[in-house]
Amino acid sequence: MQDDTTTAPAEVLILNEADNVAVAIRMIDAGDRLPSGLIATQRVPRGHKIALADVPEGGQLRKYGQSIGIAKEAIPAGAWVHEHNVGMGTTELDYAIGSEAKPTDHVAEADRATFQGYRRANGKAGTRNYIGVLTSVNCSTTVAGLIVEQIERSGILDDYPNVDGIIALKQANGCIVDGSGSIFTVLRRTVWGYASNPNMGGALVVGLGCEGFQIPKLKEAYTTEEGPTFRTLTIQEVGGTRKTVEAGVEIIKEMLPLVNTAKRETVPASELTLAMQCGGSDGYSGITANPALGLASDLLVRHGGTTILSETPEIYGAEHLLTRRAARPEVGEKLIERIRWWEDYTARNNMEMNNNPSPGNKLGGLTTILEKSLGAVAKGGSAELSAVYEYAEPITEKGFVFMDTPGYDPVSATGQVAGGANVMCFTTGRGSAYGCKPCPSIKIATNTPMYDKMLDDMDLNAGDVLDGVSLEEKGRQIFEAILRVASGERTKSEQWGYGANEFVPWHIGAVV
Amino acid sequence: MQDDTTTAPAEVLILNEADNVAVAIRMIDAGDRLPSGLIATQRVPRGHKIALADVPEGGQLRKYGQSIGIAKEAIPAGAWVHEHNVGMGTTELDYAIGSEAKPTDHVAEADRATFQGYRRANGKAGTRNYIGVLTSVNCSTTVAGLIVEQIERSGILDDYPNVDGIIALKQANGCIVDGSGSIFTVLRRTVWGYASNPNMGGALVVGLGCEGFQIPKLKEAYTTEEGPTFRTLTIQEVGGTRKTVEAGVEIIKEMLPLVNTAKRETVPASELTLAMQCGGSDGYSGITANPALGLASDLLVRHGGTTILSETPEIYGAEHLLTRRAARPEVGEKLIERIRWWEDYTARNNMEMNNNPSPGNKLGGLTTILEKSLGAVAKGGSAELSAVYEYAEPITEKGFVFMDTPGYDPVSATGQVAGGANVMCFTTGRGSAYGCKPCPSIKIATNTPMYDKMLDDMDLNAGDVLDGVSLEEKGRQIFEAILRVASGERTKSEQWGYGANEFVPWHIGAVV
Ligand SMILES: [Ca+2]
Ligand SMILES: [Ca+2]
Ligand SMILES: [Ca+2]
Ligand SMILES: [Ca+2]
Ligand SMILES: [Ca+2]
Repeated sequence: MQDDTTTAPAEVLILNEADNVAVAIRMIDAGDRLPSGLIATQRVPRGHKIALADVPEGGQLRKYGQSIGIAKEAIPAGAWVHEHNVGMGTTELDYAIGSEAKPTDHVAEADRATFQGYRRANGKAGTRNYIGVLTSVNCSTTVAGLIVEQIERSGILDDYPNVDGIIALKQANGCIVDGSGSIFTVLRRTVWGYASNPNMGGALVVGLGCEGFQIPKLKEAYTTEEGPTFRTLTIQEVGGTRKTVEAGVEIIKEMLPLVNTAKRETVPASELTLAMQCGGSDGYSGITANPALGLASDLLVRHGGTTILSETPEIYGAEHLLTRRAARPEVGEKLIERIRWWEDYTARNNMEMNNNPSPGNKLGGLTTILEKSLGAVAKGGSAELSAVYEYAEPITEKGFVFMDTPGYDPVSATGQVAGGANVMCFTTGRGSAYGCKPCPSIKIATNTPMYDKMLDDMDLNAGDVLDGVSLEEKGRQIFEAILRVASGERTKSEQWGYGANEFVPWHIGAVV
Repeated sequence: MQDDTTTAPAEVLILNEADNVAVAIRMIDAGDRLPSGLIATQRVPRGHKIALADVPEGGQLRKYGQSIGIAKEAIPAGAWVHEHNVGMGTTELDYAIGSEAKPTDHVAEADRATFQGYRRANGKAGTRNYIGVLTSVNCSTTVAGLIVEQIERSGILDDYPNVDGIIALKQANGCIVDGSGSIFTVLRRTVWGYASNPNMGGALVVGLGCEGFQIPKLKEAYTTEEGPTFRTLTIQEVGGTRKTVEAGVEIIKEMLPLVNTAKRETVPASELTLAMQCGGSDGYSGITANPALGLASDLLVRHGGTTILSETPEIYGAEHLLTRRAARPEVGEKLIERIRWWEDYTARNNMEMNNNPSPGNKLGGLTTILEKSLGAVAKGGSAELSAVYEYAEPITEKGFVFMDTPGYDPVSATGQVAGGANVMCFTTGRGSAYGCKPCPSIKIATNTPMYDKMLDDMDLNAGDVLDGVSLEEKGRQIFEAILRVASGERTKSEQWGYGANEFVPWHIGAVV
């Protein structure tokens, strides 16, 4: 099987300068020469790993600058690295809280990036200026939809060019009381988080009246009074569909001129809160788009901004890589506490927290659970972890943070936006049709063929990392795209009107 | 507190001729005379019970023709009947499967009611003629919505007067795999049930491609081939939003002329499958609208039709009243098995199956869990129970059946419609803004003040049962309304366009 490709340099991707393995971009045959001059001693399938240096038995194998496992035998430089010669070492995770946290090397004030955003009365800044019509229960979703429909059809929005639109944020739940109350706490926090997201210029909350999620309790919980840009309506009080829709349309008409007074102005990038997501992952996610996004995250953090990693089930097994980056002990402990909660939650529901590589993953070159979760964690770059939040909690710390969410994209992203995210990056390998309102979502393809095929949905291609574009360069491109989109450039999903259907609050517990 | 009302006959409601208690429609004072001549011996608050005959200590107290408890002491005729003199007797439920089942007294063939419906190729009949655009995952909901929007905006539907409309049935889930597979089984059954509901003239299912709910597996599970009125599309295959929406619009344009060939014709009422729901209940639900609906259910069953009672948590504690009506032993056993499942499900989720009357219920006159659940079960009339189904299972038996669903209305109704319901009755006390597509929903008010206030949403008033209209007469009115609506008369919620948002499949288990 020796052929003439053995004379061209073999193409590999080195994800971190500390790594002792590289990823084969194309199949490498025994005898192929790497750019560094190293000669492959074995065939290495595409996407699999090759040893860059001799690794003694028991030595660490490093990818993403992190250990992904232990050499089960001495591995010579140039050898194929996979299950046959890699083990997990001890199965006990060493959380080593804070051991690898390094204070952020902030960019000098004078050099900090800015964007054109909407300053809000509370000091926060929006990247969009929407009006939300939120619901406390499924029973009021049709009324919310009718209010939005009537406003849109009236053509009145044309008179308010600074308003990006009006969104009906419908929901499936809100009725039944659960014993522990956690369903309600989370639902209420999510609805309130959307109503108060800096991308919302105004909000109307519509309820039915007899649901468990009572609007008066929402106002009480957040010590909020109704005002010109925060209003509520209850169908049973107003007297049915017709009257409530009429009242809602009037409220929005009163709100529009006020919301329209917002103007974009120069705002420091430190006001950006970036939600990070991946969905429909493939074998390239962990080596192209995710690490590039991680570098963009590091950049934004150095400019004083905030970035949110989530999807706890997808980082399971590699959570110690985050605890080690914890800025304070309680940050690491909170993450461990959430991991324990998930173990209990899934066990109670007869499920398993199992993030082991599947047979398909292994064929693709993923060797250990660590390596797989590292691909997901790669989105989070290398900045220290400043805080851990529960689902939909308001994000108050700057820097790189973690929010505990399910792995399911719309549910996870809904929690991040409720927490205050005002811009999002979403990496995808299989191709995603996701979009979010009020939070613009930049969709980043992990591979070029999918990017070309789904050009109508993709905003950026990270597939060219395999053609020689450096991860650093790709990270910068993503960072710049974030600033442009934050300043008003419309993403593909916004052009299509995506975002109202993708509001999916996490329903924790049983539906009864 | 004696006043001149003591001379007017006290107004009471007797729910069944076998009852030994009556419900006070207005407050009764000691000394008041009932129409029967009985003199009240104590004050009886409005909505509370008065003994119609002497009941010995240990004797049964009967309401709805059923025992609601045991006299803790001898109760004389004319006395107030409540917690102070009523107990539950043994706490062990006596399921006595089939002990009270009586074969249906069918109306003679020649006298059977009919309606104007759409005969389908499989012999079933629809009361509406919709085209559904269904989704396998949240990721395809926006594309489904865009297809429906473009068709609606094109004005092309005007050319097809026999088509009631096109519905985007969006959903929140569909992505994540669970270990046991039950989430998928149920979700797939629900989507397929909607696609094949007799009120659907055609269906298009849209998926993303990488979701756990795979469209090819849907077709496999139901050995269904694509045909002119059943089509599917996968966004990742077609290549993104724009191309999929274009393809979907073309598919619907091809489907419309075919679906439009359906014509209404005379069909026996035995082709009706009635979903029964109550939501936003109040103190009158159990004595006006629910028992009236129960009589309508009995009528439809006698005319050969099918009626579905559901909402397992709301009948909990009175399930033995249904097991006793079981037509066959396995029907009763299946219901008990579902009750056990719920006990386990709620325990695993740190919840309680507790249908005991709340303090507010007790103030309103409800004494025992039996009495409360009887109010919910009253919707089911007195026909024998021919079958018990799991959530969203296809209903194949005629007569009165039970489908196991949560108590939450949109989730419960979604299961019933997936099972094949082609018309619905929904009783409400607090006022509901529910509607369903493709299944028309007749909303029945339990009290006149709410009916008057929410006239734009209510189809029928059962509050006048308290003003002397008999339950039998109200049951007949409901039965006639069912036939009219089944024949095409539009309900209030249909006039408002309710129904697409209310598709909420039951998500059993944890969201991960
Ligand atoms: Ca996805
Ligand atoms: Ca995910
Ligand atoms: Ca995700
Ligand atoms: Ca209910
Ligand atoms: Ca209900």
